[in-house]
Amino acid sequence: MVRIGVDLGGTNIAVGVVSESGAILAETSVKTLPQRPYKEVIRDMGNCVLRAINQAGVSQEDVVSIGVGVPGIADQNTGRVIFCPNIFWTDVPLREELQTYIDKPVYIDNDATVAGLAESVAGVSKGCDNSVFLTLGTGVGGGIVLNGRPYSGAHGIGSEIGHMIIMVDGDPCNCGSRGCAERYCSASAIIRMAKEAVGGAPDSLILKKASGDAGRINAKLVIDAAREGDPVAVKVFSDYVKYLSITIANLIQYMDPEMIVLGGGVSHAGQFLLDAVRGQVPNYLIYKTLPHARIELATLGNEAGIIGAAFLGR
Amino acid sequence: MVRIGVDLGGTNIAVGVVSESGAILAETSVKTLPQRPYKEVIRDMGNCVLRAINQAGVSQEDVVSIGVGVPGIADQNTGRVIFCPNIFWTDVPLREELQTYIDKPVYIDNDATVAGLAESVAGVSKGCDNSVFLTLGTGVGGGIVLNGRPYSGAHGIGSEIGHMIIMVDGDPCNCGSRGCAERYCSASAIIRMAKEAVGGAPDSLILKKASGDAGRINAKLVIDAAREGDPVAVKVFSDYVKYLSITIANLIQYMDPEMIVLGGGVSHAGQFLLDAVRGQVPNYLIYKTLPHARIELATLGNEAGIIGAAFLGR
Repeated sequence: MVRIGVDLGGTNIAVGVVSESGAILAETSVKTLPQRPYKEVIRDMGNCVLRAINQAGVSQEDVVSIGVGVPGIADQNTGRVIFCPNIFWTDVPLREELQTYIDKPVYIDNDATVAGLAESVAGVSKGCDNSVFLTLGTGVGGGIVLNGRPYSGAHGIGSEIGHMIIMVDGDPCNCGSRGCAERYCSASAIIRMAKEAVGGAPDSLILKKASGDAGRINAKLVIDAAREGDPVAVKVFSDYVKYLSITIANLIQYMDPEMIVLGGGVSHAGQFLLDAVRGQVPNYLIYKTLPHARIELATLGNEAGIIGAAFLGR
Repeated sequence: MVRIGVDLGGTNIAVGVVSESGAILAETSVKTLPQRPYKEVIRDMGNCVLRAINQAGVSQEDVVSIGVGVPGIADQNTGRVIFCPNIFWTDVPLREELQTYIDKPVYIDNDATVAGLAESVAGVSKGCDNSVFLTLGTGVGGGIVLNGRPYSGAHGIGSEIGHMIIMVDGDPCNCGSRGCAERYCSASAIIRMAKEAVGGAPDSLILKKASGDAGRINAKLVIDAAREGDPVAVKVFSDYVKYLSITIANLIQYMDPEMIVLGGGVSHAGQFLLDAVRGQVPNYLIYKTLPHARIELATLGNEAGIIGAAFLGR
């Protein structure tokens, strides 16, 4: 018995055949080319699924279910994708279309939710009933696992942690609000803050690492400079940690999960980030000395998208 | 079959005998006098419970369980109150002590959680599996009902919505953080904002209603002045609605409940408040046009504390 996991991204569609224990038996991918009509994208997805099954040396009868992680929101009941802005999908009958290529139960959920589920099944939060996963990348995504199941809320619009407001009247966000957590806790936020900071500090190690070109600044480079003690980078990193710690504290004050898992590009800063955040979060809690959620780094990396999608059907 | 509900407040201990359908059959109360040793407070609570049973004309055999709503946090497993700052309790064995007066199962939870449970059993959110209750009073309390059960999180420290930060580096809060929702969404916040505003506007209707004495300003008076169109009061109310709408939007972005219930003193502003908040909340959501939580006023008033506590044992 195997399950298929599909990670639908803006650039690639990655498909994997996953064992019941969470191991990827075969993996293949195809370009998304999201400007095309959705039927063409789903046709390529369907063929990619059939190819992965072949590669894994299993038969269609061995496949229990197919799960798809999408960069947006979906309706679990109808199997339709409601809204995925960066692949231009609105109200797409993904389940119905995909089943014309392979007739299996199809489950669909948000990609960050799927990654959080993967960590709770085969990663760092394994064994936790209630966990929250945060992807710290270009934006900030959230995935909630509640009682061992992915949770998207009563209307399927939950876990949008990146758009919880932490600064009334703060920085304008793409979503139309101001002061969203995403504006302060993403990799993009580190880059923006660093660019602002080096304007007044031409000697910063940040600029040196970027070969003098502020346009080449990325989050890793800023965090590396902070690790090496560059004062400008230390200040940027320290502001970033404060914002992230406040966002995490807000999650704890509200839902008090067992674990909060940090994933996405910024999480590659590893123990350096983890130590800083663990030190700051209690400052923003009302019960500063009582036990609260463990904060950990994601362990599955890019494979979380495929593994979690496969496990949607469990 | 009846259940006992106890509402432990800083001033009074209110005890009610509650039918299975949520009707209060008898009710009595005693002063808390929280400066005393906790054993004396719980002795009075125990005697008050026995008196209420007598008043209701039922026998102890008819009592299935006792529930207590406390102004702080409790450990459901041990039956101990962990921390209730305003009655000076830390690590109090409430269940064990109370059972020396009447030997029944004792359940303990936070008072706002208990009020939220009451609304979901016998009030406005009846029939909702997932709802969030907000008390807008001196502070801001939160009560979460998830899958029909009160939810306090993995460590019992959840639903502290008043201490979610909506303004990084904002107004200092009693909890030691800055910018907590409570500083902007409580009745106290309305009073503070109004006092600041009338300083520069001696002709405001707010001051007239307070007989010219800023010390007599309360939230009702400010909202009444806003309702009558006083520009200073309208500005204060509009700022308040913005902060409350952002706090509510944050709850929706994260957990996407079926309903958000507004209770506490400020909620007596009724439809005037409700219309304003319902109009503003979508502005702060990422999916502005998709269905989201209904926002409603609490209907049980002060009785929610007793009814909800009684239903903790269900």
